[in-house]
Parts: sequence; C-alpha cells; structure tokens
Amino acid sequence: MEIKVLEGIFDANEIIARENRELLDGSGVFMVNLMASPGAGKTSFILATLDGVKDSLSCAVIEGDIAGKVDSERIAEQGVAAVQINTGGSCHLEAKQVNHALEHLDLDRLDMVLVENVGNLVCPAEFKLGEDLKVMILSVAEGHDKPLKYPLMFSESDVLIVNKTDLIEHTDFDMEALKETVRKMNPGVEMFEISCRTGEGVERWTDWLTEKVRSA
Amino acid sequence: MEIKVLEGIFDANEIIARENRELLDGSGVFMVNLMASPGAGKTSFILATLDGVKDSLSCAVIEGDIAGKVDSERIAEQGVAAVQINTGGSCHLEAKQVNHALEHLDLDRLDMVLVENVGNLVCPAEFKLGEDLKVMILSVAEGHDKPLKYPLMFSESDVLIVNKTDLIEHTDFDMEALKETVRKMNPGVEMFEISCRTGEGVERWTDWLTEKVRSA
Repeated sequence: MEIKVLEGIFDANEIIARENRELLDGSGVFMVNLMASPGAGKTSFILATLDGVKDSLSCAVIEGDIAGKVDSERIAEQGVAAVQINTGGSCHLEAKQVNHALEHLDLDRLDMVLVENVGNLVCPAEFKLGEDLKVMILSVAEGHDKPLKYPLMFSESDVLIVNKTDLIEHTDFDMEALKETVRKMNPGVEMFEISCRTGEGVERWTDWLTEKVRSA
Repeated sequence: MEIKVLEGIFDANEIIARENRELLDGSGVFMVNLMASPGAGKTSFILATLDGVKDSLSCAVIEGDIAGKVDSERIAEQGVAAVQINTGGSCHLEAKQVNHALEHLDLDRLDMVLVENVGNLVCPAEFKLGEDLKVMILSVAEGHDKPLKYPLMFSESDVLIVNKTDLIEHTDFDMEALKETVRKMNPGVEMFEISCRTGEGVERWTDWLTEKVRSA
C-alpha cells in the first residue's frame, strides 16, 4: 500500500513536469535542472554561468532551498530575476513547486531558466521538473569515487561539471579515474572541468550551453 | 492521507530505534550515527577514529550506501568488523536496516558501533537509529554557509566535525562565522576541527569520544 502511494506521488509529479515542459515550449524557454551535494558550488556556478551568457541569453533563476533566501539574494544582486522556493524540510524540488515559481516569471521575455535544486546527490535525481537539461556538479573535494556510491544522479545527468579544479592539487582526486567510471555508467554525458573561483574552464561550458539553448 | 502514511513510517522507525537502543544497552555498546554530505570524508574519518581508539575500545562499523561496498572493504582491511547495508536507492538509513546489521555483530565483545549513514545532509537527520550520539561532518570545501541551508542536521547533531581543515587556506571558509551560526542554532553542540589527511585535531576528538563511551 505504501508503494502505491509513492507511485501516485511520482505519477502526479510527472504529469506536472510535462505541463511545465509545455509551458516552457510555448514561450521558447530552455530550462536547466542543476543538482549537486551541499557545498559543491551550485550558486557560484550559476553566477559564473549567468555572467558568461549575459550578452546572448536572457535568463532567470529558480532557487530551491530547504530554508533561507541567501542564494536568491546573491542572484538578484546581479540584476537577474530570481524566485526562491523553500521546501520546508523536503530534500528535493518537485515539478509542482517549479510550476508555481514559473508563474512569477515573464517567460515570453526569457531564453533560459536555471533551477538550483536542493543540495542532495540522491533524491533530486528521481523527480523530473520538466527540464531540457539535467546538469550535476561534483566538487573535486568530494572525491572521484562518488559515481559508484550515487549511481542514479551520475547516470541521469546530461552534463557533469567537475568544479573547484583549483583545489585538485591539494587532494587525491583522480580526474581520469572519474571520467572512466562516469563514461561507463553514462556514455552520452558531457563533462566540463571548471573552477568558479579562478574562472578556468567556464567559457568552454557557457559557449556549449549557449549553442545548446539556441539550437533547442 | 499521505501525511498519515508518513507518520506511520516515522513511528515504526522510532519503535525499532528504541529496540536497537535496548539491544545495545543490554550489551553495553555505544552507537554513533555519522552523517554528512557526499564527499565530506566520512569513511576517512571513521578510519582515523578507529585508529585513535584502537587501544582502548573494541569497535565495529555499519556502512550505509545506496550501492557498492567500497567503504566497508576499506574498513575490513583495517581488521575491523564491518557490515554493509545497501539501501537500494533510499537516501537515508532506517532503524530496521541497522537492526538487521546489528544481528551480524557480536555485541557482547564490542564497546562501540560506528554507523556511516548515506551521504546526505537532509533526510538522515529525520530518522533515529537508536544511536547514543549524532555526529555530523562538514568539509571546509562545502562552505561556512551550510547551517542556514540545512538547519535540521546542524540542530540535531550532538557533535560537529569540521573536516579537511588542510584545505582552509585555499578556500573562503570562515571558521568563526560557522561557529557563531551553529552555536545560535545548537548551543550544546561539541565542535572539533580536524584534517583526516594530515591527522591534525584527530587526537582531541578520539580522546573526547573515548571518555564519552567509557562514561556512558
């Protein structure tokens, strides 16, 4: 019986995710679902991405957090429209919450919406939001052994951002081992090595993303 | 209706957590529930802890992972009994899983069981396992702003380990800001600054833990 309830929740989420998809398609808006562990650098990555695409794409951000609005304030300071979702304890965003947030954005004036999911390498991978692209960030400080421990996230993501590469020399992180493991699990994944702190690698990512949004 | 189902699950978990507690008390075993984000250094911390207490306490480890047994193999290599729980997708350990794992350990010969929860800063905080002590790890690479974003974990933990202090000079991590925030949320929390990589700060923690286990 419990399983039936869960299936019901999952189905309802998928129905609303499809509605989000149709809503976004109607306005020609590309949506990115950004997922990562706490502290992998999601907000800094969003700020770097916004800066890199600002001349070519009109963007807005939906921030998902259990509590607080620190991140959306950081985004708004850059002059970008930001909507904060507080999940009130829940460990992932659901399509319904994103649907409410989309109502607060002027979609006809936008090219792209970046959604920052709750910091969690597990649950967000299970809930579609109606996104065009699932992007996950792994910080090199987390270690190269994470794909085998959190397989769904690494298998489901379209893009893997390896962030904080400026710390790599101070860690045991093995980039080649990571890439080999991830390619076996997810042969189609695009990988980018980035340091949001130094800016290294950001342009290659934002060029790729801009092309992706334009060709969508 | 959905809420009722969840309450049912939570209550069932708490009943089994109490059973675990009685089982452990019957054998005089102290249990630690160790929680953290993916990549905060839980397994390295367990290895460092085991090494620090090996002359005074007899220990075993229960490893919780979504998939794989990399961590329990690392523990077993040190000659310490390890039981692996694979949650098969679930983002936290529940008391029932720990109960099954305890059946595989010779409790009468043990002083302490260290439970490594699934890497997640959200859900594990909601599920009691029957532990004596909730210990959370924050890696300095995650940033000092995490308490406000993941308040339950920081409020519920008895001990906060700030790990990877060897990386602090390469980050913007503000230790005093972290401590101030955490003390406001959780005045009774014990905090330890540690680098499992260099060994700095480990002895202060293992001395404190040994005393805690002996006086329990």
